Amino acid sequence: MDEIRKVARERMKGYCRVCPVCDGRACAGEVPGMGGLGTGSAFRANLQALAALRFNMHLVHDVSEPDTRIDFLGQSLTGPFLAAPIGGVSFNMGGKITEAAYISAVLDGCAQAGIMGCVGDGVPDFIHQDGYAAIKALNGKGIPFIKPWEDAEFFDKVDKALAAGARVIGMDIDAAGLITLKQMGRPVSPKSPKRLGEIISQVKVPFILKGVMSVADATMAVDAGVRAIVVSNHGGRVLDHTPGAAEVLPEIVDAVKGQVFILADGGVRTGGDILKMLALGADAVMIGRPFSVAAVGGLKEGVFQYIQRIAGELMAAMVLTGTARADSVDPAILRG
Amino acid sequence: MDEIRKVARERMKGYCRVCPVCDGRACAGEVPGMGGLGTGSAFRANLQALAALRFNMHLVHDVSEPDTRIDFLGQSLTGPFLAAPIGGVSFNMGGKITEAAYISAVLDGCAQAGIMGCVGDGVPDFIHQDGYAAIKALNGKGIPFIKPWEDAEFFDKVDKALAAGARVIGMDIDAAGLITLKQMGRPVSPKSPKRLGEIISQVKVPFILKGVMSVADATMAVDAGVRAIVVSNHGGRVLDHTPGAAEVLPEIVDAVKGQVFILADGGVRTGGDILKMLALGADAVMIGRPFSVAAVGGLKEGVFQYIQRIAGELMAAMVLTGTARADSVDPAILRG
Amino acid sequence: MDEIRKVARERMKGYCRVCPVCDGRACAGEVPGMGGLGTGSAFRANLQALAALRFNMHLVHDVSEPDTRIDFLGQSLTGPFLAAPIGGVSFNMGGKITEAAYISAVLDGCAQAGIMGCVGDGVPDFIHQDGYAAIKALNGKGIPFIKPWEDAEFFDKVDKALAAGARVIGMDIDAAGLITLKQMGRPVSPKSPKRLGEIISQVKVPFILKGVMSVADATMAVDAGVRAIVVSNHGGRVLDHTPGAAEVLPEIVDAVKGQVFILADGGVRTGGDILKMLALGADAVMIGRPFSVAAVGGLKEGVFQYIQRIAGELMAAMVLTGTARADSVDPAILRG
Amino acid sequence: MDEIRKVARERMKGYCRVCPVCDGRACAGEVPGMGGLGTGSAFRANLQALAALRFNMHLVHDVSEPDTRIDFLGQSLTGPFLAAPIGGVSFNMGGKITEAAYISAVLDGCAQAGIMGCVGDGVPDFIHQDGYAAIKALNGKGIPFIKPWEDAEFFDKVDKALAAGARVIGMDIDAAGLITLKQMGRPVSPKSPKRLGEIISQVKVPFILKGVMSVADATMAVDAGVRAIVVSNHGGRVLDHTPGAAEVLPEIVDAVKGQVFILADGGVRTGGDILKMLALGADAVMIGRPFSVAAVGGLKEGVFQYIQRIAGELMAAMVLTGTARADSVDPAILRG
Repeated sequence: MDEIRKVARERMKGYCRVCPVCDGRACAGEVPGMGGLGTGSAFRANLQALAALRFNMHLVHDVSEPDTRIDFLGQSLTGPFLAAPIGGVSFNMGGKITEAAYISAVLDGCAQAGIMGCVGDGVPDFIHQDGYAAIKALNGKGIPFIKPWEDAEFFDKVDKALAAGARVIGMDIDAAGLITLKQMGRPVSPKSPKRLGEIISQVKVPFILKGVMSVADATMAVDAGVRAIVVSNHGGRVLDHTPGAAEVLPEIVDAVKGQVFILADGGVRTGGDILKMLALGADAVMIGRPFSVAAVGGLKEGVFQYIQRIAGELMAAMVLTGTARADSVDPAILRG
Repeated sequence: MDEIRKVARERMKGYCRVCPVCDGRACAGEVPGMGGLGTGSAFRANLQALAALRFNMHLVHDVSEPDTRIDFLGQSLTGPFLAAPIGGVSFNMGGKITEAAYISAVLDGCAQAGIMGCVGDGVPDFIHQDGYAAIKALNGKGIPFIKPWEDAEFFDKVDKALAAGARVIGMDIDAAGLITLKQMGRPVSPKSPKRLGEIISQVKVPFILKGVMSVADATMAVDAGVRAIVVSNHGGRVLDHTPGAAEVLPEIVDAVKGQVFILADGGVRTGGDILKMLALGADAVMIGRPFSVAAVGGLKEGVFQYIQRIAGELMAAMVLTGTARADSVDPAILRG
Repeated sequence: MDEIRKVARERMKGYCRVCPVCDGRACAGEVPGMGGLGTGSAFRANLQALAALRFNMHLVHDVSEPDTRIDFLGQSLTGPFLAAPIGGVSFNMGGKITEAAYISAVLDGCAQAGIMGCVGDGVPDFIHQDGYAAIKALNGKGIPFIKPWEDAEFFDKVDKALAAGARVIGMDIDAAGLITLKQMGRPVSPKSPKRLGEIISQVKVPFILKGVMSVADATMAVDAGVRAIVVSNHGGRVLDHTPGAAEVLPEIVDAVKGQVFILADGGVRTGGDILKMLALGADAVMIGRPFSVAAVGGLKEGVFQYIQRIAGELMAAMVLTGTARADSVDPAILRG
Repeated sequence: MDEIRKVARERMKGYCRVCPVCDGRACAGEVPGMGGLGTGSAFRANLQALAALRFNMHLVHDVSEPDTRIDFLGQSLTGPFLAAPIGGVSFNMGGKITEAAYISAVLDGCAQAGIMGCVGDGVPDFIHQDGYAAIKALNGKGIPFIKPWEDAEFFDKVDKALAAGARVIGMDIDAAGLITLKQMGRPVSPKSPKRLGEIISQVKVPFILKGVMSVADATMAVDAGVRAIVVSNHGGRVLDHTPGAAEVLPEIVDAVKGQVFILADGGVRTGGDILKMLALGADAVMIGRPFSVAAVGGLKEGVFQYIQRIAGELMAAMVLTGTARADSVDPAILRG
C-alpha cells in the first residue's frame, strides 16, 4: 500500500495530498478536489464521530476466526463494505488517469475481492457513461447512483443503467444542494415524499436512497418504498457544518432497522471503522476517498490491496472484541 | 472573490491577513487593526458558537426555490443580512483607500444588491461625516450607528444623520467600554434605563440598540422603546472573554422575540451562518469583517460579489434543510 | 509596555520568552526558569480555568466610574491585587539584574501605585535578605512569605522580617513539595493542624497561608487562626496536574468566605482576570509572572506601568458588566 | 537523565524521537517502532486518561516521609511499579544495542533499585531466549510474559521460563490481535474461560493475565484462577481507538479489587502518574516506553536513574497530597 499511496500522491498532486490519515484538514474547502465544502467541518465531523467511539477490548472468548460475510439485497459479499460512488477524475483527482480506467479499477477490484463498487454521476456525461460501460463489462456487478435530476434526465439514465446490466439503482438525493449543476442548466432538486414514491415505482429494480441524515427522511424513504438507505452527508461536500454520519446513524437505526438495508457512509478508513458502524446498527458501510486513492495509485490492484488490508483489520478488530459475525454485531463492543 | 481577496490582502497588509476562514486567530489582540481585544477570545467565541451548531439535512420535500426576502422596519430586503457599521479605514485597515471610498463602496454595494449597509462612528470626525455623505448620496439608504457620547455630541450627530436622509438611528452602546475615547476627551458611557428611554423619545425615528448581550439589557431596551436590538459583542473588540453572539441569542429570543426586530452580529461569514442565526430566532444578521475585506479589495463590486456569494450559499442551505422562507425558519433544522 | 516587554525579552533570554499571552506553553517543564513543573499542566490549568469563564455584558445602567479600592487586613489598596512573592532572579529569570534591584522595583512600584508587593524566600539567603531590606526601605510596605522550614530557620526569618518593619507574615506551605530544598539540607515539610496553630500563635502579627487548594486545608487554616489564605498551586511549580486556582476557588469561598481574607493566585494576567476572581468570591488576587517581566524589563517604572494598565482594564471590565465596587462583585456577571 | 535521553535519541533514530513528553503523537502509526497502531489514538488515550485526572493538593498534615513500599505476590518491592515486558530491540528500537544487553539492563536496573522487570516474547526466538537468560542470571528476578500461542509453543516457553528460575508466569492475551504472527505461521488466539482455567492449572506458579480492559474479562480471569491482572491496551499497539487504561481501571477495581493483584499499564511516565493509578485502585503499575528509552540510552545505569527519578516524584506527590502509604491511597486525592 505504501507504494500505491506514493504513486497516488504524485498523480493527485494539487488535488489530494494522500495524508497519513485522510481526515479533511489539509484539503478543507477544496471543491472541486477531494476536500469538504467551506471550512471542511462536515468532512471532519465524519471522522470525529467515528474517532469518538472506542472499543471495549474482549479477549477471554473463543472467537478466533470471525465471519465477515453479509447478504446485501440478495447478493453475498465477502465483507460488509462497498466502494462509494465517486466520479470526476479530471476535476477532482488531477486527471492523470482516465475516468474509464478509474471506474473499471474500482469495480473490478471490488468484484475480484467479492464486494461491490458503485458508479457516480454528474457533468460531463462520460462520468456515467464510463461507469455504465464498466458495469456492463462486469455483467452488472456495480451499482449506479444517479443524481436527483428532472425526470427526463433521471429516467434516461435509469434505462441506460439497466441496459448495462445493473440490478439495483441508487439516487444521491443530497446532490440537490449542488447549485453549480443548476447554473450549468442541469437542475437537480429535492423530492417530495409523493414524488419519491412515484419515482421508485417507476424504477422497478431495488432502489437505494443516498443522503439520508435525519430520522424524518429515513422514515419517509421507507414509506416511499426504498430497499436501502445510505446515511451520508455526501462526504461533507454539499453543506458545511452537518453532523457526521456516525452521529445520526443510531437514531436512524432506531427508527428503521430491519425495514430497509442501512448503509453508513462517511469517514470510514479502516476495518475498525467498519466494525464501529456495524456496532451502531449499520448493515454495511460505504467507503469513499480511500478507494479513490487506491484506484488512482494502483488501479485494480490498488483497490484489491486496500480491500485486503481493511478486511484484515476488520478480522483483527472482531477477534479483539469477541465479535463472531459481521451480520450480528453487539452494540456493547463500543464504549462510546 | 479570489481576486478581490488577493487585492485586499495586499491593501490591508499589517492590518488584516485575509485568512481562508476569518476566525480571529492570527489577528488576536490587534486593536487597532481587525482583531479581537486581548487574547481575541471574544472574537473567536462568535465563530465557535456558530461552528458548534450543525444542520439536520433534509431532502425529502419540495422546497427547491426558497424565498430569502425579509421585511426590516418597514423596508423590504432581498436577504436577511446587513453590512455592520465599521469605520476607521486608516487605523484599522491600512488606509490604502479613503474612508469616503470605503463607506460608499459598502453602502452602494448593499443598495445595489437590495440589502442595507450601516455607517460607523468614532474619532476622527470624518468617519461619520463621510458616512453621512454616503447615506445622503443614496437618498437615505444606510443606517448610522452613533456611539454613546454625552448628549451634545450624540444629538448633534443624530441631527446631521437625519439631515442626510437617514430614516433609522442606531447606538452601539457597548462602545462605552472604549476607554481610549475618554482619554481623548470624548467620553462615552453606559445609559440607565431611564436615560435610554429619554434618548429614544428625543430621537423620534426608529431606534436600534447595538451591543445587547444579556436578557436584562434586552428587556430594558424593549421597555425603553427600541425598535430593534443587535445582539453583538462588538466583534470581540471591547471586552475579552465574552460569550459569542450565537450563544446568548436564544435566551434573548425567548425574552423579546416579536416585541422588537432582533439582529444578530458576530462571526457570520457564510450563508450557512446566516441560516443558523435565523434558526436561533434572529430576524436578520449583521456581517462585519467580510464586508470590510470585500470593500477594501473590490470596492462596490467587491461588496456586491460577496453578497451574491453568501446569498447563493443561503439558498443552498435552505434547500438542504427544507427551509421555504427566511422570515420563518424552523429551529429544528439545527442539531446543536 | 511594549518597550518594557522587549527589554525583558532580551534580559530573560533562555529563561522567559515573554510570550504575547503568558500561558505556560512555551516554558513547560522549565524549573528553574519561569515554567510549570513537568508537562506544565498545572500552570496552564490556572489560565484555562480563568479563560473558561466569560462575562455577561451589561450596558444599560449608570455605572461609569467604578470604585476599585479595597481594604486588605486594615490597609487600603487602590486596587484589589498584590504582586505575588517571587525570588531567585539569577536562576529563574536570567540574572541580568540583581535580586536587590528586582525586589525593590516590585515593592516600590506597588507602593507608588497604592497596592502591595510581596517578598519571596529560598536558597541562597540573599533572596530573603534583599527582600527584607526592601521592606525596611519602604517602612514596612511589603509582605514577606517564608517557606515551611523547620522551626529554627522559620522563626529566625520571622524575627528578621518583623525587625524590617513587616506587619504581616505569610507562609507558602505548598513549598513543602520542593524536594530539592531537602536535598540541599534545608528541609521543608507540611504542618499538622496543631503545629500550624502553634506557629501562628507564636508569630503574633497577622498570618497568611499560601498554597491552599482544598476546602479541607482552608477550613483547618481558619481554625488554626490565619487571617488570610492564598488559593494557589504555586504557579504550577510544585506538582504537575493540579486544578487551576479559579477551579477550586468557589468551593473554598463557599466554606470560609467572611471568616478570612481570600486571595486568589494563578493565571491572572489582565484586569478582566482580576474581575473574574472577584466574581468567584476572592477578596483580592495575587499576580506573579507578569510582575516579574515588568520588573526585569522596566524596574520600578515597569511595575508601575503594568499596574496602570491592568487597573484601566479592570475599570473597563467593571463598566461593561455594570460593577460599581471591587469589594462587592455580583457573581452573576460571569456566564461560566 | 538528560544525557541518557540524548544518547537514546541518537541510538533510536528513526524508531523513537525521545520526545519531551512521550505521548504518542510524533510516532502515531509506527508499528514496528515505538508508536501506537493506526492513528495512535489508543496510545494517546492512555496519556489523556491520566492527564484528565488532577490532584487535590493537601498540605495541612504531618506526612513528610511517605512509605512507597508494596507487597507484590509475596515479594517486597521498594516502589509500586514494574518495568513492562517489551522486546524486539532490532525492529522496534533501532537495534543499536543487542536484545541481550537491553533486557539485562532492564532487569538488572530494576533489581538494583528493588523493583521488578518483565520479559517480553515474540518472533524471533532470541527475544524470549535472551530474556530467560537474564532472569536466570538474576536468580529468577524477572517475570516472563508469554503470548497466547497454541499449546505446544506456550507450554514449551513456560517450561523454559521456570527452568530459568521464574517464579511467576504472565500471558499478554491481547497479543491475540497481532495477525502478523498468524501470517508468520505462529498463530495466537483468544482463550475461552474454560481453556484459560486449564492453562492456569497446568502452569502451577502464580499466573498474571495482561490485556484486561473490561469488567467481563477481569471477572472471568479471576474465576479462571489468575493471581494478578494487568489492565492494559498493549500500549495502543494491537487495536486503534480503545479507551485508556486509566479510564477502565475504576470499573475493574470495583469488580475485582482484593480478589487479585491489579496492575495498571498505559501512559505512566512520572511519579504523579503512578500515584494517580494507585488512587484509582491499582495495586501497582507497569511502565513501558520510558524504561526502553532509559535502557537504550543508559543501559542498567539509565534504568536505575529513571527509577530514582520517578521514585522521587512519587514521594513529592505523596507529600503534597498527604498520602502516607503507597499500599493505601485515598481515592479522594484525585479531583477527576
